[in-house]
Amino acid sequence: MAGKVFFSVSMSLDGFIAPASLGELMGKQWMELQAWVFPQRFFRENLKLGEGGEEGSDNDILRETFDRSGASVMGKRLFDAGEEAWPDEAPFHTPVFVVTHTERDPWERPGGTTFHFVNDGIESALDQARAAAGDRDVRIAGGGETILEYLNAGLIDEFTIALSPVLFGAGVRLFEGVDAGRVALEPIRSESSPRVTHLTYAVRER
Amino acid sequence: MAGKVFFSVSMSLDGFIAPASLGELMGKQWMELQAWVFPQRFFRENLKLGEGGEEGSDNDILRETFDRSGASVMGKRLFDAGEEAWPDEAPFHTPVFVVTHTERDPWERPGGTTFHFVNDGIESALDQARAAAGDRDVRIAGGGETILEYLNAGLIDEFTIALSPVLFGAGVRLFEGVDAGRVALEPIRSESSPRVTHLTYAVRER
Repeated sequence: MAGKVFFSVSMSLDGFIAPASLGELMGKQWMELQAWVFPQRFFRENLKLGEGGEEGSDNDILRETFDRSGASVMGKRLFDAGEEAWPDEAPFHTPVFVVTHTERDPWERPGGTTFHFVNDGIESALDQARAAAGDRDVRIAGGGETILEYLNAGLIDEFTIALSPVLFGAGVRLFEGVDAGRVALEPIRSESSPRVTHLTYAVRER
Repeated sequence: MAGKVFFSVSMSLDGFIAPASLGELMGKQWMELQAWVFPQRFFRENLKLGEGGEEGSDNDILRETFDRSGASVMGKRLFDAGEEAWPDEAPFHTPVFVVTHTERDPWERPGGTTFHFVNDGIESALDQARAAAGDRDVRIAGGGETILEYLNAGLIDEFTIALSPVLFGAGVRLFEGVDAGRVALEPIRSESSPRVTHLTYAVRER
């Protein structure tokens, strides 16, 4: 049986997932947006940041999100940023399909992550990711523009937002340009920790 | 002891509280935004829509919000819209202070609602509402622009958002223009029903 196609992001209460710039103020709010992630045991292990960490529901959700992902798809800008930031053992441990105009041979990393560079569009990248994921799910990893392309194309089955208690006021909005006449949502799970509220929706066509 | 100053609104997942226009599509999404309210017993009773209705946690929250409010403050546009829409027995049953440039004598309605028209600004309106509310809370009832003026002035103690499973794509954003460098949030309550997620935050200064 084929898996689902999903995304999972942290969003500010006013709808932003990334700062407009990396100035001081937004740097602080960006840290607040992601503050629920950093102390988690799974995050620390997966990014090789050291032992220990929290093990509550936030950690469980991070681990579930990882475990269900048999392959990921991402845009070129996220890949470029990650190529600088990820450790040698990139944190996916699955095939990753990068939607890009750049032609490049697959890039195999220690620990099971191989980046494949797809030059013929988002549907092709998704088809390849589905095939690679088998019966596990495909995560559209980001960035926001890539997520929205898949959402507006009707290719997302469900998504989870970690709604953080922070206001950005400016930046990159997750749903900017969403085709609201096409996308209907059905809430399927809600779970709050002291740090963040995790909201999962199934996507339906209107 | 003085009460708190709060607001409580329904917001779409992409941050909108009202449509940009009343066209067909947005009419549908506006109904979805408010869909959790209409079936509730308290809403039906308070607006004289008839007997019966749901009595779960959504209804409890509507009733709590009403019970804690010893006075309300609203902008002129919300008042104008309400003046057309509310039943004779307006649904506040307390003093209501309308921030406006229009001079007008207090307007007393059956059932305990009296509208007072305040011409000297939001702080004056709030002072009068506090005095009228006694030890109960003051609700900033809306619209969005009035809520944001109070929030940016540091006059809101806490707020509750009923986050509805709908995307607007366009319209009036609750937090458009928020002073994100001033407002910090502390989550104090989260409760989900099958229809909506109620999120309450205390407002802190950064």
